[in-house]
Amino acid sequence: MRPTMRDVARRAGVSLKTVSRVVNGEDGVRPDTTAKVNAAISALGFRRNDIARALRGGKRTRSLGLVIKDVANPFYSQIARGVEEVARAHDLLVISGCSDEDPARERHLIRSLCERRVDGLLVVPSGTDHRYLIPEISMGTPAVFIDRPPEEALEADVVLIDSVGGARTAVDHLVRHGHRRIACLSDLPGIFTASERLRGYREALGEHGVPVDEALVRPGRHDVAGAESAMAELLALDDPPTAVFTGNNRLTVGALRAVQAAGAGTALVGFDDLELADMLATPVTVVAHQPVEMGRRAAELLCRRMAGEELPPQRVVLPTHLIVRGSGELPPP
Amino acid sequence: MRPTMRDVARRAGVSLKTVSRVVNGEDGVRPDTTAKVNAAISALGFRRNDIARALRGGKRTRSLGLVIKDVANPFYSQIARGVEEVARAHDLLVISGCSDEDPARERHLIRSLCERRVDGLLVVPSGTDHRYLIPEISMGTPAVFIDRPPEEALEADVVLIDSVGGARTAVDHLVRHGHRRIACLSDLPGIFTASERLRGYREALGEHGVPVDEALVRPGRHDVAGAESAMAELLALDDPPTAVFTGNNRLTVGALRAVQAAGAGTALVGFDDLELADMLATPVTVVAHQPVEMGRRAAELLCRRMAGEELPPQRVVLPTHLIVRGSGELPPP
Repeated sequence: MRPTMRDVARRAGVSLKTVSRVVNGEDGVRPDTTAKVNAAISALGFRRNDIARALRGGKRTRSLGLVIKDVANPFYSQIARGVEEVARAHDLLVISGCSDEDPARERHLIRSLCERRVDGLLVVPSGTDHRYLIPEISMGTPAVFIDRPPEEALEADVVLIDSVGGARTAVDHLVRHGHRRIACLSDLPGIFTASERLRGYREALGEHGVPVDEALVRPGRHDVAGAESAMAELLALDDPPTAVFTGNNRLTVGALRAVQAAGAGTALVGFDDLELADMLATPVTVVAHQPVEMGRRAAELLCRRMAGEELPPQRVVLPTHLIVRGSGELPPP
Repeated sequence: MRPTMRDVARRAGVSLKTVSRVVNGEDGVRPDTTAKVNAAISALGFRRNDIARALRGGKRTRSLGLVIKDVANPFYSQIARGVEEVARAHDLLVISGCSDEDPARERHLIRSLCERRVDGLLVVPSGTDHRYLIPEISMGTPAVFIDRPPEEALEADVVLIDSVGGARTAVDHLVRHGHRRIACLSDLPGIFTASERLRGYREALGEHGVPVDEALVRPGRHDVAGAESAMAELLALDDPPTAVFTGNNRLTVGALRAVQAAGAGTALVGFDDLELADMLATPVTVVAHQPVEMGRRAAELLCRRMAGEELPPQRVVLPTHLIVRGSGELPPP
């Protein structure tokens, strides 16, 4: 006989109502109570079982939840496009929301999606703690993470870009074109991709025996304006950088604006391609990848999970490639 | 006493099941039967009444349906961003899908959204016939159209951009800079904004007494590649245009690529701004507007309808403004 919700409640020593509140991610449950319920769920082996379906009223809603940072950023809108294509092929609807890199907002969104009983979740995680998803996943709502992995405890699938490798390629390229004073503009340090790309920058310099000048490293820039002012500051140094590596499309746009405004000939390689990169006065060399494909792969993986396929947690890492266009090949003065 | 579903069925001379199928937009109902049911719904005054709520099980799903053409196009992803902001403020989730300008796909999407009982619909309509929405709207699901109006029979709200005015401004600007041979790249003629912008082009030329050379008018181009090849053809003419007006962001990118490839000095004004327009070798003069604001205004209007506010159908037309950057001010050779 399969275990029931009642068994979970009995084992955890709590009421049925409390189990339901934990499973539904509702507020007002004490952390130790939540831990007890999660432990009981795990111990009884509730992963993708009949209980999950019973809880859901046996119904599929034929919908996916998608949480991204900001749909107005082309990187995320292309991910959304890939997800949409796969959803369409499976006759699923996409319920989406933007977290704006706010963990509280993200959690609220995911809770709302779960309350609406989406059949699966696709998340570009903004916070670092996603353990609140454990009961939901245990109870049968599969989740796939995009662009950033969840913490290990979650054991969920993730589709990533090779951030370290891409950043190394970019910086290696600049060094090979004669640069030693290479700046780095980077997003908020808590963001996985930002820290990975910064790591790639440091590793590539290290390999070439170029010491990192911390005055040229500007993390914590997460929009065009922030990158523009950081780059302007760098260009105003007594000994300004001759080149810059920018960690994402927003930072690239900001840096390009500052370089143009200063009339500087700073070499630049950016992570993420830009639609008009090849048409700028100095065409922009970038580390490109395929965000639409990332959305597709994540959605396909989710559909396999939703179909009940049992796989160990998957970690897909998509490659990057350098597109040489001009800005990355400018020599030092 | 308020009328019931049964009254509709009796008046239309059909079964309850048939009323339900019409209301839910299901297939397999004959057009004349649908018409009879819609007539009965209207005659009994079912707009936003208790029946609607009863049909929905009295429940709000706290979700909006959003149908756009393509989330990977920055114009639509910015609309989605504006919608998302308002949805968030009202604690609503956005369920979205892309029609890819396919009326059958659009209809399927809207039906799926209605089956999920969204509280309201936001639609960038791709087809020209949206009468299938009449029962849904009559039964209490408000709809607001974005960027393109529905046919008159629908009497729904719509938020538009001043396409005719914007196009006139663009072409007027080119004429004032000495151009007479001004080409026009335009989207599929069935799209409202495409035909409106083409109309603005013709009107502006007419006002200046410049006859329209039909060889320079290229409608039916709906992506970057199509615009690029059309522009290449125009530049290969014995008497090529000295200027071009492009009807949307995709067409602008395509035309810019062709002009650059040909090394031509063709003047250009594009409808829709582009993120890097100011940073190109020749910065791009555009007719700009506020797609995020368009999404916001439409969602706000929808929320007022969802709150039960009774207003006559609203038609909001947002203004455009010319941003002079260089490409539109190039003189004829």
